[in-house]
Amino acid sequence: MKESALHVLDGVEQPSQVNPYLKAHRRKSFLLQKQDYIKGIQQGDRVILSQAITLIESNRNDQRQLAQEIVDACLPLAGNSIRIGITGVPGAGKSTFIDTYGSLLTKRGHKVAVLAIDPSSERSKGSILGDKTRMERLSVDANAFVRPSPSGNTLGGVARKTRETIILCEAAGFDRIIVETVGVGQSETAVHGMVDFFLLILISGAGDELQGIKRGIMEMADCIAINKADGDNIAAATRAKTQYTAALHLFPPTESGWTPLVETCSALEHTGVEKIEEIIQRYVQLTRNNHYFELNRRNQLSNSMHAFIEDELKNSLFSNPQMQEKLQQAEVLLQQQVKSPYKIGQELLEFYHQL
Amino acid sequence: MKESALHVLDGVEQPSQVNPYLKAHRRKSFLLQKQDYIKGIQQGDRVILSQAITLIESNRNDQRQLAQEIVDACLPLAGNSIRIGITGVPGAGKSTFIDTYGSLLTKRGHKVAVLAIDPSSERSKGSILGDKTRMERLSVDANAFVRPSPSGNTLGGVARKTRETIILCEAAGFDRIIVETVGVGQSETAVHGMVDFFLLILISGAGDELQGIKRGIMEMADCIAINKADGDNIAAATRAKTQYTAALHLFPPTESGWTPLVETCSALEHTGVEKIEEIIQRYVQLTRNNHYFELNRRNQLSNSMHAFIEDELKNSLFSNPQMQEKLQQAEVLLQQQVKSPYKIGQELLEFYHQL
Repeated sequence: MKESALHVLDGVEQPSQVNPYLKAHRRKSFLLQKQDYIKGIQQGDRVILSQAITLIESNRNDQRQLAQEIVDACLPLAGNSIRIGITGVPGAGKSTFIDTYGSLLTKRGHKVAVLAIDPSSERSKGSILGDKTRMERLSVDANAFVRPSPSGNTLGGVARKTRETIILCEAAGFDRIIVETVGVGQSETAVHGMVDFFLLILISGAGDELQGIKRGIMEMADCIAINKADGDNIAAATRAKTQYTAALHLFPPTESGWTPLVETCSALEHTGVEKIEEIIQRYVQLTRNNHYFELNRRNQLSNSMHAFIEDELKNSLFSNPQMQEKLQQAEVLLQQQVKSPYKIGQELLEFYHQL
Repeated sequence: MKESALHVLDGVEQPSQVNPYLKAHRRKSFLLQKQDYIKGIQQGDRVILSQAITLIESNRNDQRQLAQEIVDACLPLAGNSIRIGITGVPGAGKSTFIDTYGSLLTKRGHKVAVLAIDPSSERSKGSILGDKTRMERLSVDANAFVRPSPSGNTLGGVARKTRETIILCEAAGFDRIIVETVGVGQSETAVHGMVDFFLLILISGAGDELQGIKRGIMEMADCIAINKADGDNIAAATRAKTQYTAALHLFPPTESGWTPLVETCSALEHTGVEKIEEIIQRYVQLTRNNHYFELNRRNQLSNSMHAFIEDELKNSLFSNPQMQEKLQQAEVLLQQQVKSPYKIGQELLEFYHQL
């Protein structure tokens, strides 16, 4: 094939069915493009990084294929960052917090990438970062890269895209990756499975504000930040800190050996955010020393491969149109309680294997 | 082998390969046996119930098949009970609590079945009910049925056996089903998915005693019982009650609309156990009124079918010997970080589909 390319360069026309010039040109530009992406990312070119992430998010197979090759090429350069998951209910001030916290980090010489994950279709309902304007300072910061949520139908798909985006950002030299998620969906466990540190942002009042938080999230947190500790709210936030500290104390120890902490802060008034950063530093130091940091990353890698395989197996069954019809019928039978869920499940599997 | 044995007993030699008399006889006895099981269970015959559960636990296909038919026949008679999950770390006094609580229930006219679930192979490590002798009163109570944990390799398998056993017990007239689990394994979520009410048993001291409890379990609890509130321990247990009540208060509301409660009790001195029963009664009343009780059961049914299908899909891949070899190789590649987990996963799937 290389020969025909050379033929073209030589100005020689070949009488074959497929235009060899075109073929060679396309392949060449394809290869160049891939190398350009990789080179651009490694040089920290944000425009090229953005375009590569768009390839990751693409639904076109050829683009996905290209993205895969870029990600694989970036893998040896990735990993050199602290990955922080940040979640909280709408109204807790996540975006303002990330804006303030991210600016603090860039001021200290860090390069900060902010990614959002939100697999829900009703984007408008949450306060998830959908536009960059919510982070006024960070969105114009030369050392920050803010990327809205990838769209996607499945949590597995969105998680995969976010994991691959993290790799590209790290290869581009970003040493702090912030993955933002709303605290009301299914995505927190997925995010927890791709970050080193998990920060939960709450506000004082504890009652109504928590309506949206999913149960179980609190026990994932390495730190709870009680935000909006400003003005008339300081006393309430301090009380909340005491209460949550007592509550976290009752939880069983974490695998990391870290004791989750609670801090108050005001992202708006830029107070307390340094304390959160200090906590993250201490966490990283502890877990690097006891090797949990590395162990956790290795486990996350293995888990993501297993989760991918399981998702693919499930999706190929549950998204099959013939199966979907059968599943609806099965649900009716199931609720009539004339057959056990296992018998119905067995019959569905037999049907599936005959397809 | 059986056929030839019968030939001899009948003294009749048949020139055919398959003995038609025998075929009919076997089918008949098979049917009779199945009907006997069903009839026996419906009459509340504990010996027959036990034998049917043994069929559920069997690894022989013909016995599993028979068990499936018995379970299906019992389904229309099942469901008329309150299913209570009870978990707690070793040393919290689960068995003593169940002995006291179960005896209270039978005294009030209930029929109580106690099932244990524990998929771990190291049974000796936990305090899970392995022998009936741990429940001295209940094991000799005519209105109680105590059944040790089914053995099994997979959590899915054990969960399935326990769900089917619940159905048989309900068909046999047991109106209170207690599913016991140790709080240290993977089984609590499975149990949570098959019961109406989830009770966590703790003891005062909160520190070391919680070492074994898995994170996330506390947020599943509808009630926390602080056991061993007796003698010198009463003050500490009361303090623990206050602390846990405050902690639960910070959790987001449950889907059921129920506010989880904390109570102290002494299973040994038979104090406080009535309060737990009162709480369960109130829970059932609330959730029957707001229809969560019924909704939850319907969801559990649907979830168990989906979980079964997913487990079967996963098991057929991950338990394949050729795949296991490939997976080990994949794990090495993965940790060398030269290929993304998705690419490796994709290659594994392609290999699997070619098998």
